[in-house]
Amino acid sequence: MWVNGRAAEQVSVLDRALHYGDGLFETIGCLEGSPRLFDLHLQRLSEGCRRLGFALHHIEALRREVPALAFGARRAIVKVLLTRGAAAARGYALTGEEQQLRILLRYPWPQPDPAVAGEGVRVRIAALRLGENPALAGLKHCNRLEQVLARREWSDPSIAEALMFSSSGALISGTMSNVFLVHRSTVLTPSLERCGVAGVMRESVLRLARDAGIDTQVRPLAAEDLEQAQELFLTNALTGIRPVCELSGRGWAVGALTRRLQGLLAPLLAPGANLGGDHHG
Amino acid sequence: MWVNGRAAEQVSVLDRALHYGDGLFETIGCLEGSPRLFDLHLQRLSEGCRRLGFALHHIEALRREVPALAFGARRAIVKVLLTRGAAAARGYALTGEEQQLRILLRYPWPQPDPAVAGEGVRVRIAALRLGENPALAGLKHCNRLEQVLARREWSDPSIAEALMFSSSGALISGTMSNVFLVHRSTVLTPSLERCGVAGVMRESVLRLARDAGIDTQVRPLAAEDLEQAQELFLTNALTGIRPVCELSGRGWAVGALTRRLQGLLAPLLAPGANLGGDHHG
Repeated sequence: MWVNGRAAEQVSVLDRALHYGDGLFETIGCLEGSPRLFDLHLQRLSEGCRRLGFALHHIEALRREVPALAFGARRAIVKVLLTRGAAAARGYALTGEEQQLRILLRYPWPQPDPAVAGEGVRVRIAALRLGENPALAGLKHCNRLEQVLARREWSDPSIAEALMFSSSGALISGTMSNVFLVHRSTVLTPSLERCGVAGVMRESVLRLARDAGIDTQVRPLAAEDLEQAQELFLTNALTGIRPVCELSGRGWAVGALTRRLQGLLAPLLAPGANLGGDHHG
Repeated sequence: MWVNGRAAEQVSVLDRALHYGDGLFETIGCLEGSPRLFDLHLQRLSEGCRRLGFALHHIEALRREVPALAFGARRAIVKVLLTRGAAAARGYALTGEEQQLRILLRYPWPQPDPAVAGEGVRVRIAALRLGENPALAGLKHCNRLEQVLARREWSDPSIAEALMFSSSGALISGTMSNVFLVHRSTVLTPSLERCGVAGVMRESVLRLARDAGIDTQVRPLAAEDLEQAQELFLTNALTGIRPVCELSGRGWAVGALTRRLQGLLAPLLAPGANLGGDHHG
């Protein structure tokens, strides 16, 4: 664990991330010391800094520190947490004196179970619905009580994820993954302008599909779109593409487009690969 | 600063409040060592514990610790923060091994400016709208980025507060206060079933008004209700009732019902008073 580049295990009880969730995070898979999809992670983090009013100088430090912390491990997860830092005064207002913190945590990253990628995962529908706020939508910020509560809705370990709808009834994502549908050879994923996290793996899969000439659509999706879909899969920075084999009792076969996208994605997830952040300009 | 009853200034970098805002808080005004509206604060905190799945044993400890931390000060603010504690594993899921933390912070509480209670405060309308989520509505939880961003919308120190609407257009509250309107001798405040914090001072003012035979209504309110109101005031646990003298350029006189409620409230805010939590059963 590092805090602002030094080994540390604690932070101030005054930190605004502790009091208000006033922070941003990224969870980065590292293979042989190399952070995967690193540019996309740093782009999303920069966008979060811009929208929340955080300084950008931590981004450059992370370019050095994330590989350094991952160094020597064949597989590791590095979680980056940027916080607004210790509050200079009580209350929501900023004083301008806050010293933002850059926290890095390293976790082991076990080898994935090939059965999950092959046969798919069981998924449920969360009862809790996501509130809508364009000011926060897309960001991986530290206000995650909705995900915590949705994850508390089930304890069956054979269920891997829950799909979440927004308060206005739009399909948005899983608790920790993005969701894709295939309908008549088109790959669809919900637009995330009102809520949800714009995942780096979601972006990678969209780019790959477009480059391969596959029709893609990013638009509002509803429960009916889910019912009409022929294929259904989840994406996440660590797990890549996971087909859904069962959703709330309905069985799904792993479809041809899902398989094709898994195949296209595989080289990008291997050590040494990097999907450039400015790949499409 | 106390953490679980011991002097401490730091917490683990693994704390789930730091990562997810997975916590609850209360900000308690203490006069001559006596926490004001203490039962109402502890009731809201208990309700939060129940809804987020926190253990309740911290509530009893707080009954002893809050007065102990306030002891000796004529005026002090004690902020209580309950967190889910250090994560036992990465991710949103709970393992059951989390050890919740009880953090107490003491702040000075300056004497209020009598001009504010007398002449009122200038208020604006926040551009940011609150997301709606009944699962979190009413609670003083640690997911407060919406309030942080709304408070960043202005820096003019002569503006005391901003009124916030929900994503569906309902008037909800200020960034750090509840809002009341008076329309034709009825005292109205927004229902908080979809978003907002159910303030202890809001509850106290509603009870006082009802006991005094004043008509009250708690219901969804819209921008039109605000336009038609004859009086407008804000409540907060520390500041009591603050009349609004200007909202986005429109001037307001401090009205008769606002003055009457301030008069009724005054004895309850004095040292030694306590508004019992089970006052109305």
